[in-house]
Amino acid sequence: MTRSPFATTALTLAIFGGFTASLFVESPAAFAQDSGKKKRRATQEAKPLEMTPALTEEIKQIALARGLKAEDLAAALKTYLPSGKFDDYIIFSSGGHSGQVFMIGVPSMRLLRSIAVFTPEPWQGYGYGFGEEILREGNFGGKELLWGDTHHPSLSETAGQYDGQFLFIGDKANARIAVIDLRDMETKQIVKNPLSVSDHGGAFVTPNTEYVIEGGQYAAPLGTSYADSKDYQADYRGMVTLWKFDRKTGRIDQSKSFALELPPYFQDLFDAGKNVSEGLIFGNSFCVESVTPGFDVGGGTIPFEAGCSQRDMDYLHIIDWKMAEQVFAKGGAEQVNGFSVIPIETSIKEGILHLAPEPKSPHGVDVTPNGEYMVVSGKLDPHVTVYSNTKIRDAIANKKFSGSDAYGIPVLDFDAVMEKQVELGLGPLHTQFDDKGYAYTSLFLDSAVARWTLGGEYADKHPEEAWKLVTKTPVQYNIGHLVCAEGDSASPDGGYLVAMNKWSLDRFFPTGPLLPQNFQLIDIGATGTTMPVLYDMPIGVGEPHYAQMIKADKLQPWTVYPAIGWNPHTQSPDPNAVKTGEERVVHSGKTVEVYMTAVRSHFAPEKVTCNEGDEIVWHITSQEQSMDATHGFCIGGYNINLSLEPGESATLRFKADRSGVFPFYCTEFCSALHLEMMGYLEVAPAAKVAEAASK
Amino acid sequence: MTRSPFATTALTLAIFGGFTASLFVESPAAFAQDSGKKKRRATQEAKPLEMTPALTEEIKQIALARGLKAEDLAAALKTYLPSGKFDDYIIFSSGGHSGQVFMIGVPSMRLLRSIAVFTPEPWQGYGYGFGEEILREGNFGGKELLWGDTHHPSLSETAGQYDGQFLFIGDKANARIAVIDLRDMETKQIVKNPLSVSDHGGAFVTPNTEYVIEGGQYAAPLGTSYADSKDYQADYRGMVTLWKFDRKTGRIDQSKSFALELPPYFQDLFDAGKNVSEGLIFGNSFCVESVTPGFDVGGGTIPFEAGCSQRDMDYLHIIDWKMAEQVFAKGGAEQVNGFSVIPIETSIKEGILHLAPEPKSPHGVDVTPNGEYMVVSGKLDPHVTVYSNTKIRDAIANKKFSGSDAYGIPVLDFDAVMEKQVELGLGPLHTQFDDKGYAYTSLFLDSAVARWTLGGEYADKHPEEAWKLVTKTPVQYNIGHLVCAEGDSASPDGGYLVAMNKWSLDRFFPTGPLLPQNFQLIDIGATGTTMPVLYDMPIGVGEPHYAQMIKADKLQPWTVYPAIGWNPHTQSPDPNAVKTGEERVVHSGKTVEVYMTAVRSHFAPEKVTCNEGDEIVWHITSQEQSMDATHGFCIGGYNINLSLEPGESATLRFKADRSGVFPFYCTEFCSALHLEMMGYLEVAPAAKVAEAASK
Repeated sequence: MTRSPFATTALTLAIFGGFTASLFVESPAAFAQDSGKKKRRATQEAKPLEMTPALTEEIKQIALARGLKAEDLAAALKTYLPSGKFDDYIIFSSGGHSGQVFMIGVPSMRLLRSIAVFTPEPWQGYGYGFGEEILREGNFGGKELLWGDTHHPSLSETAGQYDGQFLFIGDKANARIAVIDLRDMETKQIVKNPLSVSDHGGAFVTPNTEYVIEGGQYAAPLGTSYADSKDYQADYRGMVTLWKFDRKTGRIDQSKSFALELPPYFQDLFDAGKNVSEGLIFGNSFCVESVTPGFDVGGGTIPFEAGCSQRDMDYLHIIDWKMAEQVFAKGGAEQVNGFSVIPIETSIKEGILHLAPEPKSPHGVDVTPNGEYMVVSGKLDPHVTVYSNTKIRDAIANKKFSGSDAYGIPVLDFDAVMEKQVELGLGPLHTQFDDKGYAYTSLFLDSAVARWTLGGEYADKHPEEAWKLVTKTPVQYNIGHLVCAEGDSASPDGGYLVAMNKWSLDRFFPTGPLLPQNFQLIDIGATGTTMPVLYDMPIGVGEPHYAQMIKADKLQPWTVYPAIGWNPHTQSPDPNAVKTGEERVVHSGKTVEVYMTAVRSHFAPEKVTCNEGDEIVWHITSQEQSMDATHGFCIGGYNINLSLEPGESATLRFKADRSGVFPFYCTEFCSALHLEMMGYLEVAPAAKVAEAASK
Repeated sequence: MTRSPFATTALTLAIFGGFTASLFVESPAAFAQDSGKKKRRATQEAKPLEMTPALTEEIKQIALARGLKAEDLAAALKTYLPSGKFDDYIIFSSGGHSGQVFMIGVPSMRLLRSIAVFTPEPWQGYGYGFGEEILREGNFGGKELLWGDTHHPSLSETAGQYDGQFLFIGDKANARIAVIDLRDMETKQIVKNPLSVSDHGGAFVTPNTEYVIEGGQYAAPLGTSYADSKDYQADYRGMVTLWKFDRKTGRIDQSKSFALELPPYFQDLFDAGKNVSEGLIFGNSFCVESVTPGFDVGGGTIPFEAGCSQRDMDYLHIIDWKMAEQVFAKGGAEQVNGFSVIPIETSIKEGILHLAPEPKSPHGVDVTPNGEYMVVSGKLDPHVTVYSNTKIRDAIANKKFSGSDAYGIPVLDFDAVMEKQVELGLGPLHTQFDDKGYAYTSLFLDSAVARWTLGGEYADKHPEEAWKLVTKTPVQYNIGHLVCAEGDSASPDGGYLVAMNKWSLDRFFPTGPLLPQNFQLIDIGATGTTMPVLYDMPIGVGEPHYAQMIKADKLQPWTVYPAIGWNPHTQSPDPNAVKTGEERVVHSGKTVEVYMTAVRSHFAPEKVTCNEGDEIVWHITSQEQSMDATHGFCIGGYNINLSLEPGESATLRFKADRSGVFPFYCTEFCSALHLEMMGYLEVAPAAKVAEAASK
């Protein structure tokens, strides 16, 4: 070959910058940002909408070609977001047994991001060389737990309102709570409940995030010890734990946390009172029968789901957490497996714990925004049952008891505390609220969302009679929880409701025997019987359980880390951060310490040599400060991958236990020369090293 | 308490069915299916669309309230899918370093499902008690690799057309290929390439899926052995592997697979010839300079990305795989780390391997549907360079060489094989095709998609002059690959193109320092300069690299498994499947074997007892045959979770190494009594067992 066929020299120089990597640092970001500005400018200059005959005809032709009906047109236009427009609300949804949390935009119903919590996730660089110290906090004794069954996300609150600072999420399978910092949307802490293998009623926060509540579910010996289930009533217990949250450190403080021993009734959801009911916690239960799986009824066993549904009532638990806090402070707790627990008898004596009958096998207990009413949905009863805070406080003060349970806990008289029962339909499960005095309840068996009217101070907010069903919207299919805009806070916004349907069946192109769930967006902006489904969103990355929907502008996420060399786990500058010009590899005996920088499109150093068996400590600091300039860092064959967001610094440790040549490279397409952003880890075989040493 | 306040008896009996679990089996599914039918009937009966003044006014008011422009209206209506309508196309996208594959519907741009491939995923029950045997196939020697950097998904083909049967996907980080069966969308096999730590150019199939092609990238000693990179030219090599695929077993047959040794040029993408070029494989490279990271140029090192971009040309590799297959069959391969490799000198001697100059640092090499042209995009050259199959075959036959490379491989004369160079813009990267004689090339630095005209037999299909840029559509931002409807097959459909943008920056509400990618749907249905962006889809679950888009009706996924007791790993009835009535627990010495069934809403048995230290073998079979009736099965505290799709049978093995009471429960909300679908694993402490034994 005698000539170069490509006239690329000028371009190469222009974008390549004389063989220095630094010229690449800003250009792609600057380019992208420029384009963004141009685009916004162009959008602003566009003419306001005119429904010209040509446009009307175009709409008609598209609609006809695609088989859209009139109602589809409205739905499409109510949910579509043009490029670059932001959603009004953000849903933080549990990812169910995926172990993660999902961020979803409303009304566009787009999955914006998954947040890795209990399950290692390599795209986010969580648990593949970095992040293990957080995952390890969640170990069960020495046992690694590398997934979770996330159930109830809870946004931090100030005065009962979402404040956009933190998110808590519970793991039903392993009784754990995780803390996510909403500045960078990353998991900062996992706490394992030492009392219980599993939980359910958590996380829920008290109105100023003093405590994160975690309620148990499947009764077992407290402290995760062993007892035969034949001795169920004596040895098995429920519990509710109050984890003390320290906003300053952004961490749960285990030393200031405590739990209450509860009867083995299979406690379910909890919710904190607010406003007038602040200071109380409400929780329900679904197995006051105290039967157990494999329960012998004499001559054979009955299925557990039958055994635990024999009685018409279960018990609503009413807990005075402020009083419990005082008792704990005064030393009224006992230690169980190293954790402070207030015994049932102390709770009875101090008036911390009361029960009230509730329709059997309930799921949700949901407190109205004003704190006055507690709505309980017994899934085997077509009504929701509404309790009154005023009546409960009066019944407690005046000892209006109908008796006590097997453990001596006083049971409040049902008629004394019940405000209303409202018939809604089959399988009521969970209730949230809007700004118009309506409540919305999911009906699992009906596959519908019911809108109904609240009474009391809400009676004047809607045109309909109080405590009545207004309308039902069918959903597809088998709705579990639902979520309204700020719908479980002290100030719901209304407007949007999402039905979290468990089955999707014929709604989407089939994805094999495992189908997605279906989040259906429902327009609840109107009053009365108008409540249309706007959008079906398949959820094919997990099975969400519960969610919260926050006004987007309450969130103030960072888009780059505050400084180059930031440690996202401590949320502070990392003492091991590496500065440009200070990159090096330090060999010291059997330890090799690497100080590396990453910047478009270069790792420095590019070559790291070591011997088989060496312990490697590898510091790597992104020098980027441009939004979206994320680098990945993987070492092939070594199960290592990091995600280095702009400014992030990380340290990874591993043993070079396999000899060979291992390319490391950037896993996030960062720049035009991204493919070239790589280097070699060269691990000399132990035999070769020994041979060289012997010469 | 003296009375039952809940009039629920009739309802309870109705939905509870006299304490037998079996009555729950069909009802929720039947209910849902009935609702679906009703809904469809209602839809069919709706009046056809009329653009009444009221509707026009409603559209206008929604658009004004939401700030929508005329073009937004069209885009919204072209992408919106009413509830229950299916997408026309399915994208199978790599999930990048998430290690998974994503199924996305087009035009709705909804993520239908993630398919777990290289990374354990608990929602799918992959790697948490079941599926480990597949993940383990991908171990590197004894090293566990629990993630992958998925790059190129490749649908199985018949005569160069997607046939909808299998999907292959490569793992760049660890040089592995996975096989997914599209009947149940589950990973069935992972093969680890014994020659290389990492790869890049795979998976790509030959036109009848005879072979799955996996090309290397970062050169290293073949066989994953060690050599100092100072000896790069002597000891480091590239490679391309041809994995033999057996459609009948649905598995890659390693014994019939082989590789070609290649020079250490950092091979990049590969593509198989089709139609007239069937029998050839094309692959490019981006470091013919043979510099290495940390390369010493005398007196210091230069950054690798500079060193490997010094020359104006790299080499297109042209490989005759049918000839290679013959040479392999005749015993012409040598064994490297137990794998068959055809040495470079054999490839030269047998005429298997030729090179041709190509613009430097290319990414894509993409074969036109008719197989005649190979489009190479050198990302540091504003042109795409088009090679001709006719000219290549002629140049090989007539030895039109401009010389040979350092390894003696003949280099075809550039002018003899090049058909055209078409100037498109900055940073051309990847090209796909439509049904109208257009090609579409992503421009990374321009952040744009270029439409340009093909020549030859395509010249009459479009109104414009051949081999010319027609138009460019800006995208947001930094596009990597793009994907058109069946756009890399022998018969592209046109209509839709998705720009796989690496940066999203200001397009979505910020999700912290880690932002989603942006898949932008572009309407390529029109000719000429009309090519609007319709939709922005955030990808916040991974960083997709490459994708393919298949007509949905080519896929025929199962929605339940063919029989109760199906083993999805063998795709056949499981000999260990458990039938209703045959549930039992067999204690035999230190082994406990559980035979369990799962059906709404009951596990049988509900109670399993064992002793600390026992080895547990747990068979569990779903008795469901209703679509969407999936059960999860987790054992809290034991890091176990399965997803049992209808009919599935699974076996899990673990040691009961911790005593206590461990609830197991259904993790997928299956029915009204889902919460009650649970039981206890009771593990008696070793000390207690010893004590009892001594009595």
